[in-house]
Amino acid sequence: MKNKLKRILLGKPLKTSALKGERLGILWGLPILSSDAISSVAYAGQEMLLVLIPAVGVAAYAQMSILSGCIIGLLIVLMISYRQTIECYPAGGGAFIVAKENLGNIAGMVAGAALVVDYILTVAVSISSGVEQITSAFQYLKPYSVTIAVALVLVLMLGNLRGIRESSKMFGIPAYAFILGILILIGGGAFKLMSGYVPAEPDYAKPLGTITLLLMLKAFASGCTALTGVEAVSNAVPNFKEPSTKYAKTVLLLLSMIILVLFGGTSVIANYYHVIPGNNGAMLILIAEEIFGHSFFFYYITATTFIILILAANTAYSGFPMLIAVMAKEKYAPQQLSMRGDKLSYDNGIIVLSLISILLIVLFKANVTLLIGLYAVGVFISFTLSQTGMFMKWIREKSSNWHYKAAVNGFGAVLTSVVVVIIAFAKFEEGSWIVIILIPIMVFLQKKIYTHYIAVREQLKIKGSEYEALDFSKLEYQNKIIVPLGSVNKASVRALRYANTICDNVVAFNVALDEEGASEIQEKFNQLNINIPLVVKLSPYRKVVEPLLRYIESSEYDYEPGDIITVLLSRFVVKKWWHRVLHGNTVSFIEKKLLTHKHIVVSTMPLQLKDDLECLNHCKKA
Amino acid sequence: MKNKLKRILLGKPLKTSALKGERLGILWGLPILSSDAISSVAYAGQEMLLVLIPAVGVAAYAQMSILSGCIIGLLIVLMISYRQTIECYPAGGGAFIVAKENLGNIAGMVAGAALVVDYILTVAVSISSGVEQITSAFQYLKPYSVTIAVALVLVLMLGNLRGIRESSKMFGIPAYAFILGILILIGGGAFKLMSGYVPAEPDYAKPLGTITLLLMLKAFASGCTALTGVEAVSNAVPNFKEPSTKYAKTVLLLLSMIILVLFGGTSVIANYYHVIPGNNGAMLILIAEEIFGHSFFFYYITATTFIILILAANTAYSGFPMLIAVMAKEKYAPQQLSMRGDKLSYDNGIIVLSLISILLIVLFKANVTLLIGLYAVGVFISFTLSQTGMFMKWIREKSSNWHYKAAVNGFGAVLTSVVVVIIAFAKFEEGSWIVIILIPIMVFLQKKIYTHYIAVREQLKIKGSEYEALDFSKLEYQNKIIVPLGSVNKASVRALRYANTICDNVVAFNVALDEEGASEIQEKFNQLNINIPLVVKLSPYRKVVEPLLRYIESSEYDYEPGDIITVLLSRFVVKKWWHRVLHGNTVSFIEKKLLTHKHIVVSTMPLQLKDDLECLNHCKKA
Repeated sequence: MKNKLKRILLGKPLKTSALKGERLGILWGLPILSSDAISSVAYAGQEMLLVLIPAVGVAAYAQMSILSGCIIGLLIVLMISYRQTIECYPAGGGAFIVAKENLGNIAGMVAGAALVVDYILTVAVSISSGVEQITSAFQYLKPYSVTIAVALVLVLMLGNLRGIRESSKMFGIPAYAFILGILILIGGGAFKLMSGYVPAEPDYAKPLGTITLLLMLKAFASGCTALTGVEAVSNAVPNFKEPSTKYAKTVLLLLSMIILVLFGGTSVIANYYHVIPGNNGAMLILIAEEIFGHSFFFYYITATTFIILILAANTAYSGFPMLIAVMAKEKYAPQQLSMRGDKLSYDNGIIVLSLISILLIVLFKANVTLLIGLYAVGVFISFTLSQTGMFMKWIREKSSNWHYKAAVNGFGAVLTSVVVVIIAFAKFEEGSWIVIILIPIMVFLQKKIYTHYIAVREQLKIKGSEYEALDFSKLEYQNKIIVPLGSVNKASVRALRYANTICDNVVAFNVALDEEGASEIQEKFNQLNINIPLVVKLSPYRKVVEPLLRYIESSEYDYEPGDIITVLLSRFVVKKWWHRVLHGNTVSFIEKKLLTHKHIVVSTMPLQLKDDLECLNHCKKA
Repeated sequence: MKNKLKRILLGKPLKTSALKGERLGILWGLPILSSDAISSVAYAGQEMLLVLIPAVGVAAYAQMSILSGCIIGLLIVLMISYRQTIECYPAGGGAFIVAKENLGNIAGMVAGAALVVDYILTVAVSISSGVEQITSAFQYLKPYSVTIAVALVLVLMLGNLRGIRESSKMFGIPAYAFILGILILIGGGAFKLMSGYVPAEPDYAKPLGTITLLLMLKAFASGCTALTGVEAVSNAVPNFKEPSTKYAKTVLLLLSMIILVLFGGTSVIANYYHVIPGNNGAMLILIAEEIFGHSFFFYYITATTFIILILAANTAYSGFPMLIAVMAKEKYAPQQLSMRGDKLSYDNGIIVLSLISILLIVLFKANVTLLIGLYAVGVFISFTLSQTGMFMKWIREKSSNWHYKAAVNGFGAVLTSVVVVIIAFAKFEEGSWIVIILIPIMVFLQKKIYTHYIAVREQLKIKGSEYEALDFSKLEYQNKIIVPLGSVNKASVRALRYANTICDNVVAFNVALDEEGASEIQEKFNQLNINIPLVVKLSPYRKVVEPLLRYIESSEYDYEPGDIITVLLSRFVVKKWWHRVLHGNTVSFIEKKLLTHKHIVVSTMPLQLKDDLECLNHCKKA
């Protein structure tokens, strides 16, 4: 039943070999890897305006242009830096790998923690922004924003558990459609202005202040979210056709140019069409409404923006479980997360990512402005670690042109680390403090996990000299079996017979509540007339495990240190699930307690019960 | 840690022999067994008024007096009937036992179901009424009614898990204090009236209708809750000193007289002091306020009423788990419920009772009027079954005076069954339909459970001829061991050595994801240089259990039907609880799957891991 439902919801399992999908060229590589980066056009500019407009009114638009220019400069630096990373890491150069290899374990853990935060926020922010786009076009959906956002995360979760693959070409088309839509918006807006249209000046209601440095920094920090996702290409180098580094570098260049055009273009258009995002709706949708009214293009832009944001969230679904699996392989995360589920997707990671994202969406009411305070810090911490790692690599390896290369990555590292400080400071109250506290905690946990796995490995390792000492023909210890029984019945007889075949030293054991019960079971046991002793212990406390352990440790039981005692338990296996409730979990409970004892092996002998009615009919006949 | 916390919260475990506490005389037996019955004075009269006042205004008080008279008549019939039950069942004559013995299994199950409903509602109604008393005196607590009620149930739950004993004399004093309080209320009220005080006539606001039969029946049904708890004495006969039946009969007589005085007296007083219970507060508290103002007696009556209601709820905490345990012994309920916890209290029953009561309190917002619709049906169904059972007993046994005795119980049976129909009909919309649906469902479940346990017993029973056939010296089957291993390490070597000592036929088994992994483990295994074969299977689906079962069933493995295969699993036992998260539950999962196979015994060999840091320090030294 359960398995069938799982199959219907999640589809057939995939073989490991199905993992190697088609390789990407530029035509499809560009859109598939760009959704996270280009979709930020939907919120980065708007969030700058949301910081500036309440404070300085119409002056906000000019300030946004200046800040957009700075961010585009930052983009160009990152692009040049990451092209170097691509060249050095043809197997994929995520911040985690680059930091760990060049800066050591702790830096790797910090990068891992920052990336985990990054992926979770990619889902929460992109989905929330996607919902904001639709509720801007269809205002009556606004009260249901959180519900819609949570539902979308659940759809992504199920889809990814089923095994949607990001590399499918189907995922490339919406990116082109979105790029086309924004170009139409920019072009249409410019055309309308040239035709003599004068946008109405909105009311800024409140008395306005002046531009302060803190205000500019806050707006800049919000705008930096435009750069999230540019590292995606460097992670995905092995997904490209050969020569993969060349293809990847070209795609990164093209991607940067597209962001430049889209982000820059929308900033310029926003500068003319003075829309006020916020309660009225999302910036892109408001501009589209003013330019096109409720015509086809308006709906086209709404739809493509929505879809690209959902796809951006979806990129985290392939990135996050992969990152966690890599971290788990390095012993920084629980090992179960490194195992692929039966759909070639990392099920555990997908579920964790979804649940935390849903939590964030609910806590922050699917509000992009509230969530964005947490977003950019993690991203820029990983940028900084990646750049610093590359810088150290050049310094150490001193390959050809290393001076130039080290200068590029060094400059990138300095620039991004300054941005980290700016964001952490400017957005401190808005949420960056959460990330700043969270990352050290996550690093601490990773260290603990790492230590544990190393300790386990050391304990299990067979050393050279120990191989030679292995001699199975020599009996090093005695085997003894104890068969606890509640009453004398077919199940206990079956267990005793089994015990008798594997060992000469068998003892049956019973815990009785009182003298009467003790003599009753002893009498029944004697009727069996077998050559096995029964030990009965009274337990006024009605406990089972303690008297057994006490008996083993007592002088009554002939136990030599080193001997292994097998405790054989009989367990009912029932036909119907609800029958399980009727038999309790005493066996599991006893097993758990006994296993803390070093020299006890717990054996469970199943007794398959027949169907109730079948048995009763049969028994009557017999 | 967990155990320590449990001890602090729940106290030391008690021995079975501590069960036999002091026996009760009349002085303490009366108050201890009466709290449930006398506490209903706090709500029974009030709930009649709440039905009548909105419909007929001031006329309600006179009608209440008439109905109270009927209920007192019913009380007298019940008292005489139950004195006969006490005589016949000196070991305790609950409705379940009486119905099962005299009317058969199904009647027993119906009585059991009705009593379960009764106990749960005793908790929900008494606690809700208790809270209503305090919030009447301290109106500002009203918004927190549900929270306070839930907290009180939790306190009772913890207290009873710790092992409060109802029979403690401490529980007798509040009953006398409450009786005294109500007598003061009645006396004080009478005195004030005689001193010439004329209570103000309240405003009945709405236009008023006339008395209808349905209205009277509804009010009567509410008032019948005054009789809940009178059966308590007949359940508790063995708790009395010898001659216990004589003591019990006297206590029942006294109890009935007390109810008569308290219930009748408050009805009369309410008839003069025309208070309107409901939003203003509880009837008793309103009357006390009018008579005494906010003086000492007002607070005394509030406090004692509150305490007696909490004690009434507490009686269910000893009754319910005891009932469930008796039902479990008769195989009508899961066997685990028949076991005493380590505090001589039936822990599982206590927890179930608390959780369902809390659910009801939350659903019905701790509102007595809403809850009361469900209450009396169950109580009167159990009365009817008990009376009918006694009637059948006299008819069948034909002992001395049987005509008279049968007449008494027969009359009781007819009367109570009429009341069942009245309550079920009059309170149908108010909730009795829930109970009417619930009881058959519960009977169905009990039948299913009973059938299952009988079927299990039949399957386990060793028949006479089978005893003779037992011969352990004859080897009936082959034993084989399979040791699944994930890698070659100390744990797997330890498991192989153990397997080797108990059996000659050992196979090591590994599931590899690919050819590479397969040859790698084979190579390492060969280095061990032991005389055990390793079978490696490829599993592209990354499953473990399926390849193992396929291998066992294949011709490759030499399995003869009847042979028992022991699958030996190695399991880490970690020092810190959170380390468990780091090792997953693969072993439990495999165990669960394998145990559905008839001839597989699953053995678990623990490997105690050392503390991480201790191990790492040690390993470095070595």
